[in-house]
Amino acid sequence: MTTTTKPTYEQVVKERRSIRVYDPEVKISKQEMHELLEEATLAPSSLNLQPWRFLVIESEEGKETLKGLAKFNQRQVETSAAVIAVFVDMQSVETTQEIYDLAVEKGVMPADVRDRQVPAIQGMLKDIPKERLKTMNFLDAGLAAMQIMLSAQARGYATNPIGGFDKDHIAEAYGLDKERFEAVMLISIGKAAEVGYQSVRLPIDDLAKWV
Amino acid sequence: MTTTTKPTYEQVVKERRSIRVYDPEVKISKQEMHELLEEATLAPSSLNLQPWRFLVIESEEGKETLKGLAKFNQRQVETSAAVIAVFVDMQSVETTQEIYDLAVEKGVMPADVRDRQVPAIQGMLKDIPKERLKTMNFLDAGLAAMQIMLSAQARGYATNPIGGFDKDHIAEAYGLDKERFEAVMLISIGKAAEVGYQSVRLPIDDLAKWV
Repeated sequence: MTTTTKPTYEQVVKERRSIRVYDPEVKISKQEMHELLEEATLAPSSLNLQPWRFLVIESEEGKETLKGLAKFNQRQVETSAAVIAVFVDMQSVETTQEIYDLAVEKGVMPADVRDRQVPAIQGMLKDIPKERLKTMNFLDAGLAAMQIMLSAQARGYATNPIGGFDKDHIAEAYGLDKERFEAVMLISIGKAAEVGYQSVRLPIDDLAKWV
Repeated sequence: MTTTTKPTYEQVVKERRSIRVYDPEVKISKQEMHELLEEATLAPSSLNLQPWRFLVIESEEGKETLKGLAKFNQRQVETSAAVIAVFVDMQSVETTQEIYDLAVEKGVMPADVRDRQVPAIQGMLKDIPKERLKTMNFLDAGLAAMQIMLSAQARGYATNPIGGFDKDHIAEAYGLDKERFEAVMLISIGKAAEVGYQSVRLPIDDLAKWV
């Protein structure tokens, strides 16, 4: 009998650090990546709209395109198993009905609650100023992105969150509607081939106040 | 000999759900909350600027103020051990030097790297359009907020992320400069006194594409 020891939450959260060089021989199967994303997208989101969208960039061609868009992060692009490009859907009004239908179908929401909530949410999404929707979506994307990094760490992979890339051109470079899908961040993922460096954090007394 | 079994990452991420009613008798000590926030703020952030700031609202007076600001979430305010109000510091240019000095002091960054990076980052922060800085900060706040919810879960507490509150008045209600500190979300935290309901997630094939 073999037992697989799964890491504790504390290990995962404390051992994660940004890793920029990976073992290029180590790939992540589509099934494993699927499971990882399924776990990570258990993150909560505003009104459960799940506005996050992902490109899993792993083919030679996909990475070649990315090289031109992430000029200062070539090592991550070249050596990682994949780079996950995180976008937000600025038209989540289009998926509201589908999500709430799914909740009714799965038996976790009464149909009359759905029938009241869907038009209210759609109305709100149509009226909300674009910049407010964008900050709401970026916040939600941050929730899911954090769980992607942790879910990778828990599976023995390392990650690097990347903010410096060509956000204005990545959507169309991969055939996405750039008006609808706004680029948020890249997350490289793979088997670590460096130790990574420690980084500092501000003391809690500088960040938090009890009231 | 007693051993404390710490939950696995998988348990924590899969068992977290939004809980709106808590046992009002259960409080969280300042020390435990401090440790929880210290762990959660191991989250990465853009340029390591850690723009997140927190109010831990737990006193009777603090909660009384919050009741007027979170009218649709009275149960969470009343029964939780605390509500953590998450803000972003829109003037993180002010803390850049402190963070990078700390890195040099702790021996994780050479002084010459700091001396090149600090003015470059400060220049960028002064030039960046406010809306772009805001989305960057909200994304970073999402990373830390997710770890707050998970670090709470790992300690046996439940949470509820709350987006519906008076974001325009909460800073000044607690004496913060509202031009500098923008409200992001509330997170109620406490010992669960309800099971909570399941919510659905979109299938990964709707959210992700392999390229």
